[in-house]
Parts: sequence; structure tokens; C-alpha cells
Amino acid sequence: MGQFSPWQYKNQVMNVERRVYLDHSATTPADSRVVEAMLPYLTEKFGNASSVHFFGQEARAAVDRARREVASLIGARPNEIVFVSGGTEANNLAIRGLCDASLTQKLDHRGHIITSSIEHPSVRGITELLEQQGWEVTRLPVYENGIVLVEDVSAALRPETVLISVMFANNEIGTLQPIAEIGALVRKERARGNRHLHFHTDAVQAAGRVPLDVEALGCDLLSLSAHKLYAPKGVGALYVRRGVRLLGQNVGGHQERERRAGTEGVPGIVAFGIAARLARAELIERSDHTQRLRDRFESLVAERIRDIVFNGDRELRLSHIANISFRFVEGEGLLISLDLKGVAVSTGSACSSGTLEPSPVIRALGRNDELARGSIRFSFGKDNSDEDVDYVLNVLEGCVENLIRLSPLNRVRSA
Amino acid sequence: MGQFSPWQYKNQVMNVERRVYLDHSATTPADSRVVEAMLPYLTEKFGNASSVHFFGQEARAAVDRARREVASLIGARPNEIVFVSGGTEANNLAIRGLCDASLTQKLDHRGHIITSSIEHPSVRGITELLEQQGWEVTRLPVYENGIVLVEDVSAALRPETVLISVMFANNEIGTLQPIAEIGALVRKERARGNRHLHFHTDAVQAAGRVPLDVEALGCDLLSLSAHKLYAPKGVGALYVRRGVRLLGQNVGGHQERERRAGTEGVPGIVAFGIAARLARAELIERSDHTQRLRDRFESLVAERIRDIVFNGDRELRLSHIANISFRFVEGEGLLISLDLKGVAVSTGSACSSGTLEPSPVIRALGRNDELARGSIRFSFGKDNSDEDVDYVLNVLEGCVENLIRLSPLNRVRSA
Repeated sequence: MGQFSPWQYKNQVMNVERRVYLDHSATTPADSRVVEAMLPYLTEKFGNASSVHFFGQEARAAVDRARREVASLIGARPNEIVFVSGGTEANNLAIRGLCDASLTQKLDHRGHIITSSIEHPSVRGITELLEQQGWEVTRLPVYENGIVLVEDVSAALRPETVLISVMFANNEIGTLQPIAEIGALVRKERARGNRHLHFHTDAVQAAGRVPLDVEALGCDLLSLSAHKLYAPKGVGALYVRRGVRLLGQNVGGHQERERRAGTEGVPGIVAFGIAARLARAELIERSDHTQRLRDRFESLVAERIRDIVFNGDRELRLSHIANISFRFVEGEGLLISLDLKGVAVSTGSACSSGTLEPSPVIRALGRNDELARGSIRFSFGKDNSDEDVDYVLNVLEGCVENLIRLSPLNRVRSA
Repeated sequence: MGQFSPWQYKNQVMNVERRVYLDHSATTPADSRVVEAMLPYLTEKFGNASSVHFFGQEARAAVDRARREVASLIGARPNEIVFVSGGTEANNLAIRGLCDASLTQKLDHRGHIITSSIEHPSVRGITELLEQQGWEVTRLPVYENGIVLVEDVSAALRPETVLISVMFANNEIGTLQPIAEIGALVRKERARGNRHLHFHTDAVQAAGRVPLDVEALGCDLLSLSAHKLYAPKGVGALYVRRGVRLLGQNVGGHQERERRAGTEGVPGIVAFGIAARLARAELIERSDHTQRLRDRFESLVAERIRDIVFNGDRELRLSHIANISFRFVEGEGLLISLDLKGVAVSTGSACSSGTLEPSPVIRALGRNDELARGSIRFSFGKDNSDEDVDYVLNVLEGCVENLIRLSPLNRVRSA
């Protein structure tokens, strides 16, 4: 934010010609149908789902319905869904819960974990913590297109590998990882006797944007977040395949089959259920819509702005994300310039905001610091329009020109 | 629930003369003013509070306001408040986070924890888990009135004691513990050189019902839950005194000053803030109101129903809870009979629902299994009325008479 205090900043950006939100990978507004469905569970249907009486049973029935909807979104059984507070908790519970459980089982030593070098900060954070505690962690490269090679996963496997955690789709560049192929590899390994090997995928960015089927994917654990698919913040879920042993991290009451203690966040869970149903019903429509806008945006950017680099594989990626590095431009500066014109985008993930480090994801593609610092994520949503794209294009062109003119990095270019 | 399936049961209880909710210790409905204030943060003001742009700053400002309100409720500084998903997470984070941090500090061995024998299942659960991991735990008795003796705390202290965790008010019987006295003891001990000693109190039941001031109490950690004070489920907070080292349990992004990763649940946090402000403003009024209803209820019960025992100290307790054991009556049966007449109460805490064990809290008072199994918690709220009390009294009298008539336990009495 540089020289602005939050309040000065707010005043600066209060009055803009148009406001365009292109940060749907950070969060989405709750759908009005979702809000409507959850409202009664804030007021008249307010029971604690663990209470035996009428109010409790009413809440319990609503939680069960939501569990079925969320399960349906990913082809799971309802009792394989554990409601949590969000994607970060889902990732923490998956990885730490599985590793803790493995310590109490046949393994009497800390094992080995395979993950990628472009995971979300929560997966990165928990694997780093486990590493400090004596676990061995292999972080696979993703090469220039931002995709893990199945052969690398295979080569990294050891007899003591307990967990593979590779995200379904990256949150900054949207690249889709070969999850079903890794799932098949895990199944083969297990069939060969490595029974403590498990596979987790963080599908927070993918859910509601591409079809997900846990059977086809062969994963044992899969993380979801409600607020990425037009439900409120504060709720998420972890899919835990039947039979997988997981130690709960929040302990106390018997909620969520002992895997996550604490009073169920009924209104958020109800909202998540409805949002999951809508996402399933409207998946193709939403995905086609955002892809059309995103592709049009990318062609126009390529046409009108020089010195850009598109980050991430051009084909194997989510339909709603464009990640572009602007040469000679500092990403944070461009973000703020765009914001002053009403356009909301991001550099890196919202979860790593506030750090001045260049994005580790863009770095992992082999980009230099300059390109990594100059990268911007534009993420489209179901309610964006062609007019939004036109407005952003015009604003973007002006901002980039301005910043290049002012940039010290530009000396090289104009020389 | 015995012979009823949830659906049969629901049909049975759909049509009742009146519906009276006396389970405010399990959860409360969100206040309409709270719902109104949070609604915009579900829809138009939906930003991720970690985003740098306008939408993010709008959410950030709202979270900051809520943090000030919650801090004010307990006399804390805003940056001492860590928002979490609820009371269970607050208790887990407090105890595990403090113990984990102590392991990385001067202590190179697992230490000693002092707690009471009537803590909430989440405190009980996490201390049992730590015990399995090599920590030593002393569980103090509470005697017949349900209150811990400060002398017992003092006597249990050891040089390696790292944490004292004693709840502010019990969730089943409402008894108030000598928190300020324990806080003074902890301060004295620390002044004498035991610098790694810390004090946590679970104030989930107390917040909004009695004045709380962390300075006067001398606690280092204090747990809060929003849905006990007319805000939605799914949000809570942990007070962490400035300077207290705590290891975050959910790791990932930099949210909540690294003490709790994950996208902030903005709508729930906003709701919690407003609810905290209202609770502070209306504390006396609410507390007087529930006390008048509760006391009138208790006198009428004592007048009209034989063979009852009031559980917990008659003076040192929250103003909204009545916990009564009905001799010759099985609590679960009475709960269901009352529910069929539209009256919602509980046996034990909602978090321990589903177990057939007699309440460990009532057992800790020295009551036998029969009285423990026959105990019912009636917990009043700000919207209950005298008509509610009259209705419940009539229903209760009938239900108890019926159950005693049918009870095999009654043979002793009628002999």
C-alpha cells in the first residue's frame, strides 16, 4: 500500500467510474440464493445441531442435507465429508491428521511426504512444520508450464512415504495437475503392499469450476472451501475416504464423527450446501462464461500491451484465471493503480498478501525476480461481463503505460 | 432419542401449543440487529480481508472494528484478540498452543498442567491428549457446590507447572470459579520466578452474562464463542495477553498475526463484533431479566415438584442457568417428554450429547449416578418471558409425574 494509510486510501478509491472485481480466486460474493437459504438458520432455526430437542434436530437435518450436497459435488458419500472452518483448516487437518494417525499405526518413525513446490501457503506451512518435527519432505518441481510430472512423483516414492499432497489446480496460475494419474499411481503402490501411502489434493480453487469425482481421481483426502464458490467465508470441508484413519486436530465433543470437535457452524454449512448444489448445476455454464471472458481478455491484452508474459500452461488450467507478468512493472504498483480505477486484482494469493517476497509460484516456473514481482492474477467470476473486460482493458493499458514511463526498470528498455 | 427415528420424532413435535427455548447455554438465536449488520458482508462487501484492494480493505476495516468491540467486552487490547471458529478451537489453541510454545522455550521437557474436573469437553479432551503425550495433568475437585478452591490450585503448583486452565463459569451448572483469585496467585508465582506459568480461562458461558475484565482477572488466555451471545455459530475468539508466546495450530497465511491462518470469516466476525457491543450495553438488563425468570422458575419448581435437588452453588453462579436433578426420573426421558410439549432443555452439554454416560459435571459434585442421570439444565435467554416460565412449569409438572409413575426406580419410593 506504500504511502497510503488505509483511510486515505479508502477515500482515494471511493469514487470510481466503475468497480470491477477480478479477484474471484481470493474470494467470491455469496450468491443471493445462498444467502436466502441460510438466513433462517441464523434466526428462527437457530438450534445447536448436537442438541437432542426439536431445535437441535432441525439444525441437524439441515447439516445432513448440506453434507449430501457437498458430497455430491465431488462424488463422495455424505459420511466422508468433515465440515471445517475453511480451506486452510481442511489442508491442515488432512496433512497433520494423516501424519499423526500414521505415527500411532504401524509406523513407529516419522515418514516421508511428497508435495509440489507450488502448493497453497497452508499446505506449504504444514509440511514445513512437519519437516521441523523430523518428517522428510520432497518438493517436486513444476517446470515452466507449472505442472508436476507423474514420473517425478513416481521417482520420489519411498517405502516410508506416507502422504502425497498435490493441489488440484494452482491458486495463482490455475494450472491443473495430473491428479487422476497420481491417484492411479497411489492405488498401484498400495496394491503392491505400501498400505500406509495416502493421497491428498487441495481442490479449493477447482471445486465448482471443474468437475470433481473422488473415485475417478483416486484421492483419499480432498480439501474444499465454501467462499470460493459463492458461499460465505468461515466454512469448508475435508473429504476423508471411508477407512482412512485421521486424527482430529480440534478435540472435544463428538461432532463430525470425532474428526472435528466444536459446535457445527450451521448457517455457513447450510450456505455451503446450497452453493455446492448451484455450482454443480451451473458448472458448465459458469465455466464457459468465465473462459470466454478470460480468453477474450487475454487476446486483447496480448494485442494491446507489449512486453507481457503469460504464466502457466495455456491449456491445462482453470477457465477463470489469467496470470500475466508485465515486464518493467512492479506488480504491487500495478495492483494499486488498477484499484484506484476501481479494478480489483491480486499479486500472488490473498493468503500471502503483505509479504514483499516475489511469488514463489511464479518463481517455481523459472521466471526471474522481475517477472515474478510483475505478475498479476486476474480471476473472473460468474457475474463478470464483457463490459467489465472492456473497462479493465482500457484501465490496464493506461496504468501499465504510466508505470513503465515512471519505472527505473525502464532505463534498460528505453536505452 | 430412544425409539424415535429423527423423522418420526420431528412429526411428533411439529405441532405444539407453545414452543419455549430454555437451552441458551447450548446456543442462542442471532439477534436481528446482528443479522442486519452482517448481511452486507455476505453480499456487496464480500472482500477477502487479506486482499490489498478496495474490497479487501473494506473487509479489513470491518474485521478491525469487530476486533475492537470484542476486545472491549473483556477489557483487552484489539491486537490481543485472535478470531477463531468457535469456543472449542479457542480452548484447543489456548492449551495446545501454549504447551507447544513452552516446549520450544526454556523448558526442554513436557511440563505440568492444572485444570478442574468440570471443564468443557474441549478442555477435557485436549488435556487428556496432552497427558497421552507425556504431560502431567492435575484435575482439581470441585466439591458439592461445584467450585474449585484456590488453596487446591496453590497446593497443586509445581516448579514445572506451565498452565492452569480453569473455566470462568461452568456450562452445565453455571457455577462461577474464583478466577481473579487464581489470577492473583499466578501473578505472585510469576513474580517469584516461575516465569513460564500461564493462566487460561474458558469464558464461553460467562461472556455477555457477567462483566469480564482480563486485567482484573489476571488471566493470560481467555476463550470466547459468538453463538452463546446472540451471534451466529462458526466464530469465536481467543484473548492472548500481549507477550504470551503461543504456537498457531492452523498454519498457512499470515492472518491473525500468525496465530491463526486461514481467510478471516468476515461475516461471522462482523456479527460477533456487533453482538459483543450489544452484550456489553445490555449486560445488566439481560442478566437481571434472566435471573428474575430463573429464580421465579426455581421457586415454583421447589414448591410444586417433590424429590428434586438443585445442582451447583446457589449464589456463585450465572444468572440464567438452573440445573435440577429429578429423583426417580431419567434425564433423557424427561428431556424428550418436555420436547414433545415444545420445551427445549438439555442434559449435560450439547457437546456431550449422544453419550449415555451420566454427566461428569454432576458426578463431580458427589451426586450418585441416579441423580446425575436425572439432571436437567434449563438455561434462560433475553427473549424468554414470564409466560414461558408458566408454560414450562405446567408441562414439567405433568411430565415428571408421568415419568415417576412409569419409572422402575419408583418402586423404592412407593414401597
